Amino acid sequence: MAQNKQIVLDNRPQGEATTGNFKLVQSETPTLQDQQVLVRHHFLSLDPYMRGRMNESKSYAQPQPLGEVMIGGTVGEVVESRHPRFAPGDKVVGMGGWQEYSVVNAQEPGMLRKVDTTHVPLSHYLGAVGMPGVTAWYGLVKIINPKAGETVVVSAATGAVGSAYAALAKARGCRVVGIAGGPDKCAYAVEELGFDACIDYKVHGDLKSLSQALKQACPNGIDGYFENVGGYILDAVLLRSNAFARVAVCGMIAGYDGQPLPLANPALILVNRLKIEGFIVSEHMEVWPEALAELGQLVGSGKLRPRETVAQGIEAAPEAFLGLLKGRNFGKQLVKLI
Amino acid sequence: MAQNKQIVLDNRPQGEATTGNFKLVQSETPTLQDQQVLVRHHFLSLDPYMRGRMNESKSYAQPQPLGEVMIGGTVGEVVESRHPRFAPGDKVVGMGGWQEYSVVNAQEPGMLRKVDTTHVPLSHYLGAVGMPGVTAWYGLVKIINPKAGETVVVSAATGAVGSAYAALAKARGCRVVGIAGGPDKCAYAVEELGFDACIDYKVHGDLKSLSQALKQACPNGIDGYFENVGGYILDAVLLRSNAFARVAVCGMIAGYDGQPLPLANPALILVNRLKIEGFIVSEHMEVWPEALAELGQLVGSGKLRPRETVAQGIEAAPEAFLGLLKGRNFGKQLVKLI
Repeated sequence: MAQNKQIVLDNRPQGEATTGNFKLVQSETPTLQDQQVLVRHHFLSLDPYMRGRMNESKSYAQPQPLGEVMIGGTVGEVVESRHPRFAPGDKVVGMGGWQEYSVVNAQEPGMLRKVDTTHVPLSHYLGAVGMPGVTAWYGLVKIINPKAGETVVVSAATGAVGSAYAALAKARGCRVVGIAGGPDKCAYAVEELGFDACIDYKVHGDLKSLSQALKQACPNGIDGYFENVGGYILDAVLLRSNAFARVAVCGMIAGYDGQPLPLANPALILVNRLKIEGFIVSEHMEVWPEALAELGQLVGSGKLRPRETVAQGIEAAPEAFLGLLKGRNFGKQLVKLI
Repeated sequence: MAQNKQIVLDNRPQGEATTGNFKLVQSETPTLQDQQVLVRHHFLSLDPYMRGRMNESKSYAQPQPLGEVMIGGTVGEVVESRHPRFAPGDKVVGMGGWQEYSVVNAQEPGMLRKVDTTHVPLSHYLGAVGMPGVTAWYGLVKIINPKAGETVVVSAATGAVGSAYAALAKARGCRVVGIAGGPDKCAYAVEELGFDACIDYKVHGDLKSLSQALKQACPNGIDGYFENVGGYILDAVLLRSNAFARVAVCGMIAGYDGQPLPLANPALILVNRLKIEGFIVSEHMEVWPEALAELGQLVGSGKLRPRETVAQGIEAAPEAFLGLLKGRNFGKQLVKLI
């Protein structure tokens, strides 16, 4: 038994999300049943998809229930176990939620996975060698499927997904161009993440300006695009797309608050014979082993050195999450819980 | 040599196309060179893609040059030949353009194809057993790829593409729902073309109304959609799409005049994990033999009985073409030239 601080969803956002949507509660962890494991979380992952779950409206997933602990990926250490495959001290990754401890029914497949921290720091299992990394891998490899020499673009370039995307695309011989907010992020993208170029959308705040910047950064046009954002950024990329370009749609962060977010010119789908495909990485578990193996090698060999922004303590999670939605984080956004 | 009436593009449309964009001219057919064939056209095909060619703006194809004969598919009869594989009397299909005769360099692959009119009337090689039929086949079979029991939808349902789509979808065990303009077309779609239901977009003239009608006609949701139109019809279909639905984009007729035609809610691509793919059938010549074989059998067996609207004489082509863009035709729009 331990004192467990938890963040629950108290009420749903009206438009923009605020810290008032969340509530901190505290409880004692329950006595373990057979097959259960008690995990102490070291890090909580904050990810844009969580914003979608806060809405009541139809989406691909059930909405986050009110009054329950916010969902989220976690890494931590087993402190007590009534399951034969887990022992105290094991490092594990799971979906423990916004709280300091979780009790896991470890017999259910996929609930808890032991990880090796010899070459990969524990926190990276929430980023480059976790769900965001596999997300980048699926969109790039399975949807965009680029040939060497092609130009591929990603928005939110310095985030956990964008960082992995750059390393995976360079490994395939592509020209890779990022879109990010601010000169620091753009410099980091080129100097540290291996992007060939990075465009600051804060400097290019409308369709025409961004489209011009893309033309310069992608002199041979765009063959693949990984969409994390939506809005005029998608419009600008489609304007610069080559025939038979592929667009992997992973996020529409610009639309989470409910504002209308039209696509200006869908006729380009026909004109450029585009393929646009939405996906959710948790529906493609069959690719995870292959993807995680490549991502682990990229991190282990130093070719992918993901940056992290770390907030301290569960109380800091709501503010850090809202900052993530505004792009205030730099690299993978985590909350450290020990 | 023969007197040849021709329609050339005289000037480009400013917004909506008008008869004033075209000009009738007359010339003598030239003396044949070696390998050339003189074809007398029996029918000219009018198709929505021609409107796109009239614009100067970037598209997948070169714009129709000013002062030259409008492009278009034709069927006819060889009247003179200096090519060993063609003889006077042969029935042929080609891209003869908006004129009564054409001189074809028959040695160039794909320029002229002999057809058998034993079981299939000559004009159908411009429709169900020609480019529109193969267009329906490619979108349905290669992009939507439906399973038996799935629900597939098509706009412009009673046109040449829509008619073939219905027969092909029924042959695959699908529920097939059309969208067309007016009660006559909708009744014809159900009674003659085999649609399970057909929605009159003139009765359902906005997103909400059409979306409700689709819900009734597609009680299990929509798994595949063949897009000929664009605009609010596409928005309504996406609202009713199931997870993993596929959309084949073949036309955006609603946008040809240059008016903005946004897609209202592209976030549905992610929410429903849609795959949206634009295509041009002439870029997939490898499927034509298989597609034409199936379409010929459907016509020969009476399972596909396409309707035609026939204008008389080359002078009538511009007016008939503008009517096609307004949906005034009923079935495949042709111009009879003999």
